[in-house]
Amino acid sequence: MIIQFNELQKLLSSILIKNGFDEENAELLSTILSENTLVGVASHGVNRFPALIKLVEMGHIQPNAKPTSVNSFGGWEQWDANLGPGPLNAWRATDRAVELSKEHGVACVTLKNSNHWMRPGAYGWKAAEAGHILICWTNAIPMMIPWEAREPKVGNNPITLAVPRSKGHIVLDMALSQYSYGKLSTMRREGRELPYPGGYDNEGNLTTDPAAIYDSNLALPIGYWKGAGMAILFDLIATILSGGKSTNDLSETMMDTGMSQIFISFDPFKAYSAHAINEIADDIVQSVLSAKPLNEDTIVSYPGERIIKTREENLKNGITIDDVIWKKIKTLSLQ
Amino acid sequence: MIIQFNELQKLLSSILIKNGFDEENAELLSTILSENTLVGVASHGVNRFPALIKLVEMGHIQPNAKPTSVNSFGGWEQWDANLGPGPLNAWRATDRAVELSKEHGVACVTLKNSNHWMRPGAYGWKAAEAGHILICWTNAIPMMIPWEAREPKVGNNPITLAVPRSKGHIVLDMALSQYSYGKLSTMRREGRELPYPGGYDNEGNLTTDPAAIYDSNLALPIGYWKGAGMAILFDLIATILSGGKSTNDLSETMMDTGMSQIFISFDPFKAYSAHAINEIADDIVQSVLSAKPLNEDTIVSYPGERIIKTREENLKNGITIDDVIWKKIKTLSLQ
Repeated sequence: MIIQFNELQKLLSSILIKNGFDEENAELLSTILSENTLVGVASHGVNRFPALIKLVEMGHIQPNAKPTSVNSFGGWEQWDANLGPGPLNAWRATDRAVELSKEHGVACVTLKNSNHWMRPGAYGWKAAEAGHILICWTNAIPMMIPWEAREPKVGNNPITLAVPRSKGHIVLDMALSQYSYGKLSTMRREGRELPYPGGYDNEGNLTTDPAAIYDSNLALPIGYWKGAGMAILFDLIATILSGGKSTNDLSETMMDTGMSQIFISFDPFKAYSAHAINEIADDIVQSVLSAKPLNEDTIVSYPGERIIKTREENLKNGITIDDVIWKKIKTLSLQ
Repeated sequence: MIIQFNELQKLLSSILIKNGFDEENAELLSTILSENTLVGVASHGVNRFPALIKLVEMGHIQPNAKPTSVNSFGGWEQWDANLGPGPLNAWRATDRAVELSKEHGVACVTLKNSNHWMRPGAYGWKAAEAGHILICWTNAIPMMIPWEAREPKVGNNPITLAVPRSKGHIVLDMALSQYSYGKLSTMRREGRELPYPGGYDNEGNLTTDPAAIYDSNLALPIGYWKGAGMAILFDLIATILSGGKSTNDLSETMMDTGMSQIFISFDPFKAYSAHAINEIADDIVQSVLSAKPLNEDTIVSYPGERIIKTREENLKNGITIDDVIWKKIKTLSLQ
């Protein structure tokens, strides 16, 4: 199925309204999820929409809850997301972090009782649009191994780092697992092997077989012991600073709900003009892109570059939606 | 050679004084480098000491320079390290970030014109001792590939993340390369193969042969494209916020001097008692340590755990110093 951005956004919005979202939240959430799909991350857009509606029905997502202030310590503020929709919590926390950093130069907004925020890059792009530098991450249910273990005890704790640039922001959006379970699932369905080891099989051997990892639940952190260490520290910092749930706390229900998140914004305009910031960023990007490609058929790129092209193409040609997902969404729209 | 901590520290201090360091800087720098050696990171302690003296002789390290304030924007301060000794710059920036975060909840101190800071974990342990959470990283000369490239264009940009805990702080200290060139060099000398691919050979194939990577200069980022992306973003953020040199700027001399660094401190005491912070941290650590080991002979650990044991052992039994390094240090002490 191919659909235009506006049509998709309106459809999702109407379903959200039927499910108890007020107009403001339905409009913003449907826009974020449609945008995620538009830029090529349907896994954190339409593909996850039916699961989101399910979580609303189960009461894990409160459609109209908004973050409320818990504590304010100058440049660091703690907020309670009250189990509102994850992308809206993150959107509002980003807004607040950007505003607060205009006062303090640097600011940190933490959320407890948040929900799955879908595509972290969305908040990076948002902050970069405002000319700010953003670092944000979330904790998650245990789905990755600590190093030397054969039991998932750490989250894949996705992170975004974003830097503004007029020719295209530089936005890294990644989980700490080598591959997401979404990716493993797709590869398994298509009968393809992973290009690099993605986890252990049930015998404790590293494997490139997505089905074996899906079965063992032993996904590999990036850089082996290094990514495992980062996941532990990200969980510690988000949990302590937000006063919210840790990965271990989330393991009690194993639901993607109630997580802790952190948003750190820097206001570079305190020191420079937009032009000066842009020149530094552009110089670094150009240097990276000047690297000799590995092979004749490889292209060196920077984080966020592909997003821009995909977005343009999908705006022009429409967005391709998986048929199974489309059927589910049509069903939701008729209920 | 086996030497006691105090003896090592006094020896290094006396050599520093001979090389133009004032007493305060000689005392602090020799203590940091001896401590790095004590905790098992001789590669960023005594092993690098002769190179440090060389950089002093060449004028790249100014023995008595101290960071001076450039700009203050509330919670974010820019400092010029004036090419002072890297570990002292980082030590003082950490002190300042910790102090500033007591005012603002969160604080960011940036350094331009700094120098190689040796073991980043040292600053993490320092902040954690003060009960604070610290994130700090540095940029570096290009020594790692951007993804899909066969030319080193990004730094390995080491990072530390630290969280306080009474039974032992949790401190991650890592470069973004899968293996350091120091590690590759040691493995090559010992004729050992890397346990996991560490880079490309000159033909563009992933390899576990440390000599091949040493030869090609194509070290692999952790998580392939993911670590490469992090390195780009770390460089962008440190360079923009400090107003200092980027990895590309540092490539002009390919000297480990003049880099940009960033120190972000959070004051958790704003929200909690030390006891409460400790309970959260301990709960997360215990959960990680409870994971079933991969094999009978593997032990699951948390970042920083091993440091404590090594430190205790070396305090008791003395520190083993490589004979070649020891000879060089003795020579320096006699000059």
